[in-house]
Amino acid sequence: MKVHADLCVIPLGAGVSVGQYVAECQRVLRDSGLTHQLHAYGTNIEGDWDEVMAAIKQCHERVHALGAPRISTTLKLGTRTDRAQSLQDKIDSVKSKLDQ
Amino acid sequence: MKVHADLCVIPLGAGVSVGQYVAECQRVLRDSGLTHQLHAYGTNIEGDWDEVMAAIKQCHERVHALGAPRISTTLKLGTRTDRAQSLQDKIDSVKSKLDQ
Amino acid sequence: MKVHADLCVIPLGAGVSVGQYVAECQRVLRDSGLTHQLHAYGTNIEGDWDEVMAAIKQCHERVHALGAPRISTTLKLGTRTDRAQSLQDKIDSVKSKLDQ
Amino acid sequence: MKVHADLCVIPLGAGVSVGQYVAECQRVLRDSGLTHQLHAYGTNIEGDWDEVMAAIKQCHERVHALGAPRISTTLKLGTRTDRAQSLQDKIDSVKSKLDQ
Repeated sequence: MKVHADLCVIPLGAGVSVGQYVAECQRVLRDSGLTHQLHAYGTNIEGDWDEVMAAIKQCHERVHALGAPRISTTLKLGTRTDRAQSLQDKIDSVKSKLDQ
Repeated sequence: MKVHADLCVIPLGAGVSVGQYVAECQRVLRDSGLTHQLHAYGTNIEGDWDEVMAAIKQCHERVHALGAPRISTTLKLGTRTDRAQSLQDKIDSVKSKLDQ
Repeated sequence: MKVHADLCVIPLGAGVSVGQYVAECQRVLRDSGLTHQLHAYGTNIEGDWDEVMAAIKQCHERVHALGAPRISTTLKLGTRTDRAQSLQDKIDSVKSKLDQ
Repeated sequence: MKVHADLCVIPLGAGVSVGQYVAECQRVLRDSGLTHQLHAYGTNIEGDWDEVMAAIKQCHERVHALGAPRISTTLKLGTRTDRAQSLQDKIDSVKSKLDQ
């Protein structure tokens, strides 16, 4: 089962600047080999359900290991059985409708 | 690693009434043995990370099997390393502060 | 326009225990007169769109005033034009399907 | 009060392909004059709290007007009082830490 995820990891008890924790998650995703794209309020990830979930678990483990005692993550998960679609397909579909 | 989750599964292309799909997820959670509590905009779940994630994957599989071609789930995931805390502890903590 | 909301306010840079900030949001909601129900990972709110949004804005203002320099909120918003439905209706609908 | 939002509008009872509804929200945002950036699982928006919220309300109204009887939106809202920060600042901050 393929999944599109949108991941936003928020460390608590780790100060007001959380960029280093977000960067650590980017390293996890880069090392995972999964297609992903950082945006200003999260990261889009595309891949096999189990591989995406393994990467997200590793993000929690690594952010805790860096010193954050608590994490609250918001995650969106999209699956579909009717057809294959990439993250870029979704953006292209909206943009083509905008130009009409 | 223990996790508190808040799960909201939204089937697309399955009509305007989605209660049967939400009920199917409740059956998955009941059969999982995980502590969980339905509310009006999702379900709180508490347990071991891998067991919670296995149940959520099964929710997607079963909702697709029931006929929904597309699902968009919103999931919150809370982990902490400083101390153990149950779902009920969180509610009790807020309520005790409200009474002060 | 009526809305069902699910509000989860996360203060950053405010330490690991955030119960006092959640309690402050409960006071805002209580004073608003809006129907609401605390759960372990947020609060369901029901009412007129503008009134619900005014309460949520006041939650951010009051949590900042209490000392949190940064907030990341996750909010779900449900609207429908086909029929009226209360928060309790949604729970009852799922539970009735579970008993079938 | 400035806010960073991440908006994902999901129409229900409107079929499996929802691109036309997402495109309508993009038109609302374009006409609002607010800084915004589409990604594959939502749209980042930056601006004054009241203006951002007015645009989001208009998205619900326009998506209903296009024919969707029900909408479930997931919204993230970030505010901070310690300093000004743009959407692009957040991305630059993470990327600079990645290069270290």
